[in-house]
Amino acid sequence: MLIVGELINASRQKIRAAIENQDKASIQQLAEEQAANGADYIDVNAGVFVGKEAEYLKWLVTTVQEAVDTPCCIDSPDPGAIEAALSVHRGTPMINSISMEKERHDALMPIIAGSDYKIVALCMGDAGMPETADARVSIAEELVSNLEKNQIPLDNMYVDPLVQPLSTNDNYGTEFLNSIERVKKQFPGIHTVCGLSNISYGLPERMLLNQTFMVMAITKGLDGAIVNPLDKKMMAAIITAETLAGKDEWCAEYLQAYRQKRFEF
Amino acid sequence: MLIVGELINASRQKIRAAIENQDKASIQQLAEEQAANGADYIDVNAGVFVGKEAEYLKWLVTTVQEAVDTPCCIDSPDPGAIEAALSVHRGTPMINSISMEKERHDALMPIIAGSDYKIVALCMGDAGMPETADARVSIAEELVSNLEKNQIPLDNMYVDPLVQPLSTNDNYGTEFLNSIERVKKQFPGIHTVCGLSNISYGLPERMLLNQTFMVMAITKGLDGAIVNPLDKKMMAAIITAETLAGKDEWCAEYLQAYRQKRFEF
Repeated sequence: MLIVGELINASRQKIRAAIENQDKASIQQLAEEQAANGADYIDVNAGVFVGKEAEYLKWLVTTVQEAVDTPCCIDSPDPGAIEAALSVHRGTPMINSISMEKERHDALMPIIAGSDYKIVALCMGDAGMPETADARVSIAEELVSNLEKNQIPLDNMYVDPLVQPLSTNDNYGTEFLNSIERVKKQFPGIHTVCGLSNISYGLPERMLLNQTFMVMAITKGLDGAIVNPLDKKMMAAIITAETLAGKDEWCAEYLQAYRQKRFEF
Repeated sequence: MLIVGELINASRQKIRAAIENQDKASIQQLAEEQAANGADYIDVNAGVFVGKEAEYLKWLVTTVQEAVDTPCCIDSPDPGAIEAALSVHRGTPMINSISMEKERHDALMPIIAGSDYKIVALCMGDAGMPETADARVSIAEELVSNLEKNQIPLDNMYVDPLVQPLSTNDNYGTEFLNSIERVKKQFPGIHTVCGLSNISYGLPERMLLNQTFMVMAITKGLDGAIVNPLDKKMMAAIITAETLAGKDEWCAEYLQAYRQKRFEF
């Protein structure tokens, strides 16, 4: 499972303040803690700063990379901000994300074409958020085809089917889960990723829902997650589900996590 | 999700003692607690008493039914003991279980033929425990066909694919999960059930494994479970997974469980 550490996101009040104050130490501590707890990529998001997003995103990338060797997941809907962040990033980043929204798609594609970046392909088009598995798979087909035409190999694509809140429609869980399974089956070798906390929006005991939904998504083939690596319960659920899904030879990872007292449940 | 309360099983030391002492109060208390916490059937098992199993199983059924209206799940590999228990059972029991082991199969089939009992169909034959999904489905095909010939409707069949310990083969989780999915797909209208604690045998943090595996099995279509209904974490996992699987209109069951403070995680 590829883990993208989600904590350095300016929509969180503490991060917003740290960015405004150019407080390197706070950002770097969070980068280090996430890397130490299993993050393969450190998400950086400065989306709340209209007009200053590109500048702050560059600063985040530089600040994070001074502290850790883990690459960044450059998280923005704005191709200009992504390009700015790429200009200072060392190593191979993940780009979060391209979609089928025409303006975003057409501006970002030339920036990533022919690269070896990991690309998050978000199942979103100009018609708005998809509600069914069919709608998600249909967007994924178009997006994957376009990425292939632009020399992005399947192995570098991470389709994000886009989680929507269960509180608004009690089928949104299954529609999402089925889209994970269908995308994995339709494009052998491709990956899937998501940030799934939206599933529990508007319901009580959100952590219980998020953690359970993660296990269900892994059962359907999810192999990337944008999560908080410091959440020991969530990480225990992920490691345990992967082991039960036959992805952990001799249960070695499970046993190591147990011995290192990384489990909480 | 059909819940079979597993606690009245003589392989547990306290239950064995209660049976030997003909301690009705202890058995009845456990029956009441399980019924109050969501059990649809109360499993009764006296399998450790060689030579006295039939007598004790009858006593367990009578004792349980004096206390609760919930029907019993009569749990024995011995058709004679099952027949004895049936002679005193009121209402419609579940029978746990018939298998493709020839002696057991041929002796039990006439007892259940044409009945409206719920029947657990265990994927086990004379060749021993199945290891793969293929082997499980193959036994299920034969067993389901024989049950249909004996006027048991699909809706009363609960196929138990038989969980085996992950510690002995790291693919045993997926083989089991895939067999759940395949059985449900191949026989529309049929049910599946299992007691899944064997999955964690020989590994640490067994409750974490059991709970996670339950969520994965529900994702694949499991709709019956032989569990401890007093285990609040397990019950929280089951209710939450069912809600996320789209089986809980308006999330009503989830919200009710939350309000009744039945969640622990």
